[in-house]
Amino acid sequence: MKVIAFAGSLRKGSFNHGLVRAARELAPAGMDIIDADISAIPLYNGDEDGDNRPAAVTALADKVKAADAVLFATPEYNYSIPGVLKNTIDWLSRVPGGIFAGKPAAIMGASMGGMGTSRSQYHLRQVLIFLDMHPLNKPEVFVSAAHEKCDENGDLRDEKSREMIAAQLKALQEWHQRLS
Amino acid sequence: MKVIAFAGSLRKGSFNHGLVRAARELAPAGMDIIDADISAIPLYNGDEDGDNRPAAVTALADKVKAADAVLFATPEYNYSIPGVLKNTIDWLSRVPGGIFAGKPAAIMGASMGGMGTSRSQYHLRQVLIFLDMHPLNKPEVFVSAAHEKCDENGDLRDEKSREMIAAQLKALQEWHQRLS
Amino acid sequence: MKVIAFAGSLRKGSFNHGLVRAARELAPAGMDIIDADISAIPLYNGDEDGDNRPAAVTALADKVKAADAVLFATPEYNYSIPGVLKNTIDWLSRVPGGIFAGKPAAIMGASMGGMGTSRSQYHLRQVLIFLDMHPLNKPEVFVSAAHEKCDENGDLRDEKSREMIAAQLKALQEWHQRLS
Amino acid sequence: MKVIAFAGSLRKGSFNHGLVRAARELAPAGMDIIDADISAIPLYNGDEDGDNRPAAVTALADKVKAADAVLFATPEYNYSIPGVLKNTIDWLSRVPGGIFAGKPAAIMGASMGGMGTSRSQYHLRQVLIFLDMHPLNKPEVFVSAAHEKCDENGDLRDEKSREMIAAQLKALQEWHQRLS
Repeated sequence: MKVIAFAGSLRKGSFNHGLVRAARELAPAGMDIIDADISAIPLYNGDEDGDNRPAAVTALADKVKAADAVLFATPEYNYSIPGVLKNTIDWLSRVPGGIFAGKPAAIMGASMGGMGTSRSQYHLRQVLIFLDMHPLNKPEVFVSAAHEKCDENGDLRDEKSREMIAAQLKALQEWHQRLS
Repeated sequence: MKVIAFAGSLRKGSFNHGLVRAARELAPAGMDIIDADISAIPLYNGDEDGDNRPAAVTALADKVKAADAVLFATPEYNYSIPGVLKNTIDWLSRVPGGIFAGKPAAIMGASMGGMGTSRSQYHLRQVLIFLDMHPLNKPEVFVSAAHEKCDENGDLRDEKSREMIAAQLKALQEWHQRLS
Repeated sequence: MKVIAFAGSLRKGSFNHGLVRAARELAPAGMDIIDADISAIPLYNGDEDGDNRPAAVTALADKVKAADAVLFATPEYNYSIPGVLKNTIDWLSRVPGGIFAGKPAAIMGASMGGMGTSRSQYHLRQVLIFLDMHPLNKPEVFVSAAHEKCDENGDLRDEKSREMIAAQLKALQEWHQRLS
Repeated sequence: MKVIAFAGSLRKGSFNHGLVRAARELAPAGMDIIDADISAIPLYNGDEDGDNRPAAVTALADKVKAADAVLFATPEYNYSIPGVLKNTIDWLSRVPGGIFAGKPAAIMGASMGGMGTSRSQYHLRQVLIFLDMHPLNKPEVFVSAAHEKCDENGDLRDEKSREMIAAQLKALQEWHQRLS
């Protein structure tokens, strides 16, 4: 089972990149997690879409098409999805064929505040309705006070959070099997 | 009364730029609407924030600070706020001093679909809670089937939509007075 | 395939009861739609829950347990789910065993306004996350200007709306098969 | 300044009734908090609205009309507003004259879970748009793990939570002055 993972931040020491790295370590047998690097995706401009679609978008779309499921590790900026993550989704959603449609998804997120990106995650879930994806309901993974749970490299050290991630990936594998 | 207007799209013929142009024509006496050009704002990267903040962000922040109110003309992409608009807000929200805090706001939007960007507008309203802004409740301006209501330059020709915009700007002026 | 249908209104001539009646007529072969009569469910009171749970709640819970899927026909009151529908869900959610968990669901709604209950439906979708249900993404069924599309008995006469309902029920049947 | 307070629960030992009692103790000088008892409000039925409106609804509506501001202390049931609270709002919203319109509001909530009713509060905020109310943005009051912060009578003992409530009421008083 191939999972493509989006970390919704461009910052080097990003906690959400740390979540994706932790997910890669904690993935159950048979699950391969690939990094969806969003750093080369430009700002969306409808005039540059279509025949002129940037090569970086097409390349990332191909990686999504090849995946069985999608993992989102999203920060929360201003009580919603970070612009940089939403921008990547906006480009990918325009690639012909509906590359996200029908795929199972899992959502996690890390933030310094107390809600662990929950506001951002519920907005992202509304986006997934339009994309026709099937997000896992449970377990939800909210990593709050992330600066206390990650080390200086942004690597997740908190055992309880790591267990939640492992449990979510296990559930994603089962959800994928149920949908197949 | 100075209003800074954000059109949440980079497309030249954007319907939401058309809404802002219409707003400029329809503004009540005493209201001056300034365009917040977002095209020079790069993708948000926390590593480039702070002392290294891009000059384009600082320049736009100064325009926001100088304004009495904010107008958002937002498209709807994938049932939420466009990444490019959210990305601009993400940068501006990090400028010291809380440049949006306490300001009245109005929200409008145009889309080809039938809901007139309502899903995007409710997400934007949640963002404004964090920014501590005071959005107008009514009238809401939802311009659906925008391709039938705008001409080939994206200029809004539909009389009913224009009346709604005029009414909203009038209400924004009164709301600003009530808050002063 | 047995589907239990909740119409979120107590009004006799309710448009949403009309939607459920239309659904019963338009259900594909092999789908049986049962009415979840919510009129006997009292206001939720935690002190009357548990051992004292009202008989009407237990009886309705048994009907939900016996169903393969759930259909919600929801009005929109004050930009959200009607209290009477939410109140029924609140009671049923407390019945031991998680009677909704894992079931596929479909959501439709009729309102006199122009948005066809979309705001209510997105709130309901957030509720279904907690209940661990699997709502259909598409097609969404938004019946706006319902007073023009229903006759004096609240029966749905609009052909396009009826086609949307038929398409949604077909999709629910396939979604149920995919999940089985 | 007269504030009418809605506690969104019928349970005797309700934590949210506890919040309202704490608010009454902590109100700044010049603020009088009146209890909006919702226990006599029946389930909403459009056929019993209008000329047949229940006396309990009319009586409560009169209390709302006489108030300068509204305080909501909301539980979270199933990731949204409790049906019993929403049901009361549904009735009151139909009383002619728009009894809520233009009033400032504050929102708080207590729950046993970790999010302190935040999901419920954001749904309630969407309801307030339709009612044309002006909710305070900050401070938000989320009392999580309420069973550890309240005593056996449901009275709030946690000092930090009490400080947040006092700060919110102070802000509500200033917000009311700004709007007057």
